[in-house]
Amino acid sequence: MFVGVDVGGSKVLAAVVSPDGQVVSSVTARTPGRLVEAVVVEDVMTEAVRTVAAGEEVKAVGVAAAGFVDAAGDRVAFAPHLPWRDEDLRGRLAERWGTTVVLDNDANCTATAEAAYGVGGGDGIGVVVTLGTGIGGALLLDGQVLRGHNGMAGEFGHMQVVPDGQPCECGGRGCWEQYASGNALVRFARSRIGHEPSVLAEACSGDPERLTGPMITDAAVDGDLVARQAFAAVGEWLGVGLANLVAALDPHRIVVGGGVSAAGDRLLDPARVALERSVVAAGHRVLPPVLAARLGPEAGVVGAAELARRAV
Amino acid sequence: MFVGVDVGGSKVLAAVVSPDGQVVSSVTARTPGRLVEAVVVEDVMTEAVRTVAAGEEVKAVGVAAAGFVDAAGDRVAFAPHLPWRDEDLRGRLAERWGTTVVLDNDANCTATAEAAYGVGGGDGIGVVVTLGTGIGGALLLDGQVLRGHNGMAGEFGHMQVVPDGQPCECGGRGCWEQYASGNALVRFARSRIGHEPSVLAEACSGDPERLTGPMITDAAVDGDLVARQAFAAVGEWLGVGLANLVAALDPHRIVVGGGVSAAGDRLLDPARVALERSVVAAGHRVLPPVLAARLGPEAGVVGAAELARRAV
Repeated sequence: MFVGVDVGGSKVLAAVVSPDGQVVSSVTARTPGRLVEAVVVEDVMTEAVRTVAAGEEVKAVGVAAAGFVDAAGDRVAFAPHLPWRDEDLRGRLAERWGTTVVLDNDANCTATAEAAYGVGGGDGIGVVVTLGTGIGGALLLDGQVLRGHNGMAGEFGHMQVVPDGQPCECGGRGCWEQYASGNALVRFARSRIGHEPSVLAEACSGDPERLTGPMITDAAVDGDLVARQAFAAVGEWLGVGLANLVAALDPHRIVVGGGVSAAGDRLLDPARVALERSVVAAGHRVLPPVLAARLGPEAGVVGAAELARRAV
Repeated sequence: MFVGVDVGGSKVLAAVVSPDGQVVSSVTARTPGRLVEAVVVEDVMTEAVRTVAAGEEVKAVGVAAAGFVDAAGDRVAFAPHLPWRDEDLRGRLAERWGTTVVLDNDANCTATAEAAYGVGGGDGIGVVVTLGTGIGGALLLDGQVLRGHNGMAGEFGHMQVVPDGQPCECGGRGCWEQYASGNALVRFARSRIGHEPSVLAEACSGDPERLTGPMITDAAVDGDLVARQAFAAVGEWLGVGLANLVAALDPHRIVVGGGVSAAGDRLLDPARVALERSVVAAGHRVLPPVLAARLGPEAGVVGAAELARRAV
């Protein structure tokens, strides 16, 4: 029995995952956020693992964390939305849970899952981007995650695409994730509400500050013009950034996951168009397919459980 | 006896290279450029190989070409400054020379040489950038070049860093090589001549169109203000682009080669400063060293000969 735990800035998802990557059962709990003691988050995780295990023996637990995990897979070096700062999370949880614990960045876990059970597998180079509030990412080589010198490879969202552009939570400016993420979708839609008729004005009760990504996804499905423009704008920036990654890595495939990717081709089609228009030597190369991730919001726990399974 | 041939837009360099990577003898010839029949360039290469071999039997020849070489190492798909367009150069030269021929992109050959005999070796991920007229690049994993789906991995120079920026020879706009290459150095210096006192005004006989990269390197060594400002500006853009590659790849080391890198720390120091200032999570990671390539302008032929040696 293997358990995966995905811990993000707003929630913890724990799941029992079968040896062939199916989620057998799961439980969700709210994360207290970053302004608490680390142990409080660990209490929530512990309770979630206990609940989902339901008294059965757990062989190993994989933890997918929304933060920078060191190359050894022991420490969370930094996590913008969680309280850990250079702490040995893996060791502490292993001791507390009395079991093998494996730790990795959440996008790396998503990539592991997509490589094993989704659309990220196969030989060669794979680029995985997860679009949520920001952009997570991972680099695959022959189905294995390349973690880099500090375990931080794949932070594609913090490549600068606009000099002196939008300020980013990372402290930089003009990062890709400010133009091609859930945050960007909301910012675009906010700037249009009031200028164009849109169901979004009602959805946020007239207060653009209350607008969320899922509201925009729903409105786009219903054909709302502002919502569709927001996806077109974000999709185009997605393609421009992917063109940079194609120039640098010449990957065999690109996988796009995360909550924003629920919009499917409404997001991916403008991205594909911008990629083909922007990439170097477009007429002299085979472009990689831009694929929608298959495992959805459970990819993180499935990948974490997969790492746990491989570790024992 | 192994021979390497480096064919660029302005010259062909052929060399006999010893099994431990030393250039034993070499010969240089002018390239007719891209506005000729491909066979004319191949004649120049043939003559250069014959001359440098001096009647000895050649076991294998490695060819480093300034262009996109396909994943199989057979065809030049496209070369901005040379006449080949999707042609089986490797097969044609092998038949003509009656010997084993190996073909790769020039930056990949430089990376091979630096990994084997210079500063690019060792486990993990290495980023190699060669600054000449434009920017060439290569990606190393555990000392081996990662070539990508089309053999085009490492085209870092064509990542867009400025939306709607300077037009690029590739057809795009705002490519990194327009800001951090020999071309950028010349453009910067041209824009200052006449506004600031500079020895460069004399060096180009009052015609800024005649300014070249080497003139600027010489002037910088002599302390000329405009030349030093040009290197500082190009070095800063070099660092900004390297920060993007560090975010994406978290490499263990970065190697900077090519003619412009002859300026050494005058170029690399501002790059290191900009890298540290721009990279995500700077305080939570070990930054890769930014190393000057060791093999200089001979890196391409040494790497090509190394590939030839490995092929037999």
